Amino acid sequence: MNEQNYPEFADVLSAAEAIEGFAVKTPLLRCDDLSDRLNAEIYIKAECLQRVGAFKFRGAYNRLSRLNTEEKKRGVVAYSSGNHAQGVAASAKMLGIEAVIVMPEDSPKMKLENTKNYGAEVITYDRETESREEIADKISNERGCIVVPSFADFYIIAGQGTAALEAVNQAKEKNVEFDLFMTPVGGGGLIAGCSLAVKKLSPKTEIYGVEPVGFNDVQRSLEKNELIKNERGGGSICDAILTPVTEKMNFDIMAENLSGVLTVSDDEALLAVKYAWEKMKLVVEPGGAVALAAVLTGKIDVTGKTVCLVLSGGNVDEDTFMKALTT
Amino acid sequence: MNEQNYPEFADVLSAAEAIEGFAVKTPLLRCDDLSDRLNAEIYIKAECLQRVGAFKFRGAYNRLSRLNTEEKKRGVVAYSSGNHAQGVAASAKMLGIEAVIVMPEDSPKMKLENTKNYGAEVITYDRETESREEIADKISNERGCIVVPSFADFYIIAGQGTAALEAVNQAKEKNVEFDLFMTPVGGGGLIAGCSLAVKKLSPKTEIYGVEPVGFNDVQRSLEKNELIKNERGGGSICDAILTPVTEKMNFDIMAENLSGVLTVSDDEALLAVKYAWEKMKLVVEPGGAVALAAVLTGKIDVTGKTVCLVLSGGNVDEDTFMKALTT
Repeated sequence: MNEQNYPEFADVLSAAEAIEGFAVKTPLLRCDDLSDRLNAEIYIKAECLQRVGAFKFRGAYNRLSRLNTEEKKRGVVAYSSGNHAQGVAASAKMLGIEAVIVMPEDSPKMKLENTKNYGAEVITYDRETESREEIADKISNERGCIVVPSFADFYIIAGQGTAALEAVNQAKEKNVEFDLFMTPVGGGGLIAGCSLAVKKLSPKTEIYGVEPVGFNDVQRSLEKNELIKNERGGGSICDAILTPVTEKMNFDIMAENLSGVLTVSDDEALLAVKYAWEKMKLVVEPGGAVALAAVLTGKIDVTGKTVCLVLSGGNVDEDTFMKALTT
Repeated sequence: MNEQNYPEFADVLSAAEAIEGFAVKTPLLRCDDLSDRLNAEIYIKAECLQRVGAFKFRGAYNRLSRLNTEEKKRGVVAYSSGNHAQGVAASAKMLGIEAVIVMPEDSPKMKLENTKNYGAEVITYDRETESREEIADKISNERGCIVVPSFADFYIIAGQGTAALEAVNQAKEKNVEFDLFMTPVGGGGLIAGCSLAVKKLSPKTEIYGVEPVGFNDVQRSLEKNELIKNERGGGSICDAILTPVTEKMNFDIMAENLSGVLTVSDDEALLAVKYAWEKMKLVVEPGGAVALAAVLTGKIDVTGKTVCLVLSGGNVDEDTFMKALTT
């Protein structure tokens, strides 16, 4: 990476120090059933067990902990489908910072409520017709608070990378090395950060992202080598990863480190939610389950391979969860 | 303990060696929401993430690994509401032993199916009218196989104790010492084993068991200082812990080490199942959630205390889980 101000592996290590004692070191769990079924070694990095129920706390806390005293006084504003919202709200509360969060009005009510419960001011918008960036910028201009991007940010990317740093080190403790490392992809903050750690610690590991069908901006952008927006703003059950389009910083890191991007349907994501409930005893939201869905439904051949799947979040409403259980 | 052939702390350590690499070292997770809500430090030992979805694998594997070559050839028979069944079936498969499991016909279908899937022969009986001990003894006499008790056994108790051994050591790594250690109680295998580890490593920690209302044989037995059977054989949603009555070995260990036994209703157990789903992102079965239920519903004052709650299993059918979600 030659670009200025792009995070590198050292920044992931620095993020790991910043979040130590605040973020959960989530377990790396072997999925016995799927390993047997696919003649592979399948491991799960259970980020649904992270503080706020999603990996997003890692990046948010890393970002907010870097603000200076004057910036902390000004407060922060973030836009998010819900998990980054909770990550920023919880981090802000822990660091004594005021937070305003701009969220789609169709966010799962659990995410809306949790964000409010962390003490943040929540402002809702319409995913299809309004621009969350514009709303956040307006608030920032009016109130002087600092915008905390959800994925295109040096410290956010470095923070999310700590999930992979942990996973690779936990695997080493078990004398395991990953052939494949797979995560859900929305804006590309998680996978970009993870790729910095994976490619440094385990260069031969191939990295794949997974997006919902119809919201595969990263897959198409990497294919065309330019940023291509999703046609729709909403309409998938995978609310956590419906980002309109990735951004240059994430794109460049992904273009350098990813082996490919796969897609799964909503039904396939729901199948993975049920599978994680039944076989792993973990609560995962549809958007957090897409990497598992891709493997479960044979989108990629994992025979004989050692695979790490990130289950990126577990903030899901009762209705959606029951829909998965009756799939 | 002066009784002969009762397990002691050294036997828990020996069990830990026997299951090393086969059982999951389950995570000890801080429950932020409940800690904040109760002004306490609440930790969860997530045994639902254990192999077979319940702590029972620990004792079963420890027991079966001690059989000699001749005994292994004869095979084993066990009776169980489902989690011990899966523990024995999975352990038998891993050790190349044939297993027959006697299960109530009203066991959750997930437990019946999983037990069969581990390769065990399953024989069902009526919880209300038949004696599982008699059925198992008959099979043992006819086929020459060895009965593996579900809780009243030296190696089973020692094996279950490894859950507490891990939890106390995981707490020490976090510079935490438990004031209270609480587990669900069926026959008393888990809590008896855990008490051996807790009282040795952290003598001041108070140990409480939790039973379902109407199935409080251990509570009443300890009060009367004699074994008192439950009046009913079934009829609670907490299928995992409806053991008719504890036995002398477990009773004696519990009488020495427990500070008390609490009870919760089915509705309270369901509330805890939902709570674990919403706030911990863990799938827990009603019987595995009763210790959490007792704390959630204020059955014991934990203000200012550091508490470890064992979530003992997560094998629950869709219908029961959806009932919890709509509670």
